Amino acid sequence: MKRRSLALATDLYELTMAAAYFCNDIRSIATFELFVRELPQPRRFLLVAGIEQALEYLEEVRFSSEDIDYLRHHPSFSAVPRAFFDYLEEFRFEGDVWAMPEGTVAFANEPIVRVTAPILQAQIVETFLLATVNFQTMIASKAARVVAAARGRPVIEFGSRRAHGSEAAMYAARAAYIGGCIGTSNVEAGLHFGIPTFGTIAHSWVMSFDEELTAFERYMQVFPGTTTLLIDTYDTVEAAKKIVAAGLKPQAVRLDSGDLATLSREVRRVLDAGGLTATRIFASGDLDEYRIAEILAQGAPVDAFGVGTRLSTSADAPNLGGVYKLVEVVADHERKARVKTSPGKLTLPGRKQVWRATAPDGVYVEDWVALAEEEPPIPGAQQLLQPMMAGGRRLGPRQETREIRENALQNLARLPEALRSLEPGPGLPVRITERLLAEQQRVAARWTGR
Amino acid sequence: MKRRSLALATDLYELTMAAAYFCNDIRSIATFELFVRELPQPRRFLLVAGIEQALEYLEEVRFSSEDIDYLRHHPSFSAVPRAFFDYLEEFRFEGDVWAMPEGTVAFANEPIVRVTAPILQAQIVETFLLATVNFQTMIASKAARVVAAARGRPVIEFGSRRAHGSEAAMYAARAAYIGGCIGTSNVEAGLHFGIPTFGTIAHSWVMSFDEELTAFERYMQVFPGTTTLLIDTYDTVEAAKKIVAAGLKPQAVRLDSGDLATLSREVRRVLDAGGLTATRIFASGDLDEYRIAEILAQGAPVDAFGVGTRLSTSADAPNLGGVYKLVEVVADHERKARVKTSPGKLTLPGRKQVWRATAPDGVYVEDWVALAEEEPPIPGAQQLLQPMMAGGRRLGPRQETREIRENALQNLARLPEALRSLEPGPGLPVRITERLLAEQQRVAARWTGR
Repeated sequence: MKRRSLALATDLYELTMAAAYFCNDIRSIATFELFVRELPQPRRFLLVAGIEQALEYLEEVRFSSEDIDYLRHHPSFSAVPRAFFDYLEEFRFEGDVWAMPEGTVAFANEPIVRVTAPILQAQIVETFLLATVNFQTMIASKAARVVAAARGRPVIEFGSRRAHGSEAAMYAARAAYIGGCIGTSNVEAGLHFGIPTFGTIAHSWVMSFDEELTAFERYMQVFPGTTTLLIDTYDTVEAAKKIVAAGLKPQAVRLDSGDLATLSREVRRVLDAGGLTATRIFASGDLDEYRIAEILAQGAPVDAFGVGTRLSTSADAPNLGGVYKLVEVVADHERKARVKTSPGKLTLPGRKQVWRATAPDGVYVEDWVALAEEEPPIPGAQQLLQPMMAGGRRLGPRQETREIRENALQNLARLPEALRSLEPGPGLPVRITERLLAEQQRVAARWTGR
Repeated sequence: MKRRSLALATDLYELTMAAAYFCNDIRSIATFELFVRELPQPRRFLLVAGIEQALEYLEEVRFSSEDIDYLRHHPSFSAVPRAFFDYLEEFRFEGDVWAMPEGTVAFANEPIVRVTAPILQAQIVETFLLATVNFQTMIASKAARVVAAARGRPVIEFGSRRAHGSEAAMYAARAAYIGGCIGTSNVEAGLHFGIPTFGTIAHSWVMSFDEELTAFERYMQVFPGTTTLLIDTYDTVEAAKKIVAAGLKPQAVRLDSGDLATLSREVRRVLDAGGLTATRIFASGDLDEYRIAEILAQGAPVDAFGVGTRLSTSADAPNLGGVYKLVEVVADHERKARVKTSPGKLTLPGRKQVWRATAPDGVYVEDWVALAEEEPPIPGAQQLLQPMMAGGRRLGPRQETREIRENALQNLARLPEALRSLEPGPGLPVRITERLLAEQQRVAARWTGR
């Protein structure tokens, strides 16, 4: 496969703008903030993920000689002087990064990542940061909904085959785990992130034998303790009867098609009547939070769920519109806040912090977006943006993915009940401090002349 | 970033089944076919893409010692004998592959890829093949619709920041180009696939200057011939007036927000009145085929489109449900066709071929799915599945992505008019030969007892 070129994993304009900053000798220090303007319906919260991969990228991004050659021969760069390409050879990201730790619950208009760096550096990294944080945050947020719908029953992420390629499959597995899945079928995610991996058998295993029962027996000989038998290849209830009659004792059986609520009841009856009360029922097949809620509302005796396509592609909200906006430029020791005044896209100027107020029982009450230099707007509020990188170097140790997941689950448990439901509705109230609003008006007036 | 482990870029059950085949000494030759059961609404055709990456993977897939160590210590494999792990060290894909060439138009129930290999090998590669072909085919199919809606105006893929991670961004760019985009903003795709890359400027460039006009002037000094100025940061029409007044002559201006039809007309008027009749208008901002059709129906003087998020995530149909089903097993010189009889999921048994019948004017009329050994069901029909790999080795030279795109455009032009429209409706008729239907009944009866 192609060797990746992460420095070129960006939009061309990031690099042409870099050349233009370079050639105009613009050395300003810029602050960009990554945030989502509106929660995609019907999401009522976001669960932050992908920060670890964003930081890894910032530490490692370099231009190879192949990358630089490509740019040098690109028609857009024909008038760009050699000095710029020499600079790219030495390129490092040397900025400061504040971010919400992975597993933090976030809402609209809250900076999730804040990058302060020489403007050229901060610009080049935009596309990668957005793609990474948008994607994993989207999947973790979806997973949290699916897991909530399962009401304590384990959910395993099964969606690699429909993810947007094999890398997306791996990171979808990571984000789904952070969102509360107990594991994934994706083995590469298991290797890289220490996530538990699970599997059952496929229809092809069953179909490769002349008799379904032989398929079951042969598989269980190799995996005596951990077998989940897939029983819907031909006739689900008949297959359960064959298992009982043959005296097989699988750990679980999987239903992957048909009316899962009805079939699970019939299969449960067959298993129980045959003494297989310890054999669990695992359901899969086009599931999402709504289907799971429906199946459980029908009282189906399903013990665990495998959720694939609709989780690994966040099918009902398949993209997250995170943006990365310039909020401040410091040039010649003068600090200048910036806003964009396009209709419907007015931004909040200046470096910001997000504060979270909590009720005495630990439940989240409201968030505040403030200028970074402001005092906490509510006494005792929690500061959500944390320093992650200074001068291009990581601060603090890497977190295990397992720890991130534990933090995420604790954070999700502190959401108000309504936000954890599947009902559409608003997120947590996000308030803007008076000082920040005044600053927004002041800066916007400078540009709109009003 | 993590080094990828492509052999583990799979579902765990592919590997447990591999161990079970190995331990049961099952050496059957299996044929699997990859196909889509139903076209996702409102798609009326699929444009095949991702075959090149699938073949690269099949040539290159190996288990590293790290991969094998991981499996050896995995709880599921605790009872698997050492011989299996020794086998994995030697693992190669040694099968035969037939596939539709990239850029072929495909429909429901038509095998797009057919793999014949020792069953263990054919099984392990399932997840990667599906993720790759599902994803790129989905994006190429979406791109073809977007490009059709633009009625000859160039479309550039701009969606990297919302793609499902940076690898998805690169392959989305490739697939969008195959589907007819003239290029992409994704530089890595430019490097790896020779795709033209384009860029304009971002709001941040404009916002980093105290005056919008200074931002325009400074950028044009560096890129005199190729500048597209983004003019919606503050006030779109005012920005156009400033450009004219200052005597700048950008190649194009970009509108990225607001009512694009109205703004484009006003901006066109300002530019023309100022003598900038050669300056093109480029539109972007939450576009897709429907928005483009709407803007053009209003007579908007837009010359080219940048399409991002909704293209790079195929937002209205964000996953393609391709499956990979066992259709035949050859063991002990006996060939056994296979079907799955789960409700709604009855498959077609045996190795198959797809034939396409064409009208005298070249327009596609109907497709036939037949057993591979059957004669063409219609004289002169085109055989869609082509041999791509034999014994694990590629047949024939790699195609340039540019050539694939040209073939795709020629193929798309042969679709009946209705299928190229945005109206929902059926695809091309896909007929099953009598012999294949009889075979399906015969094989299904064996399993359902009917």
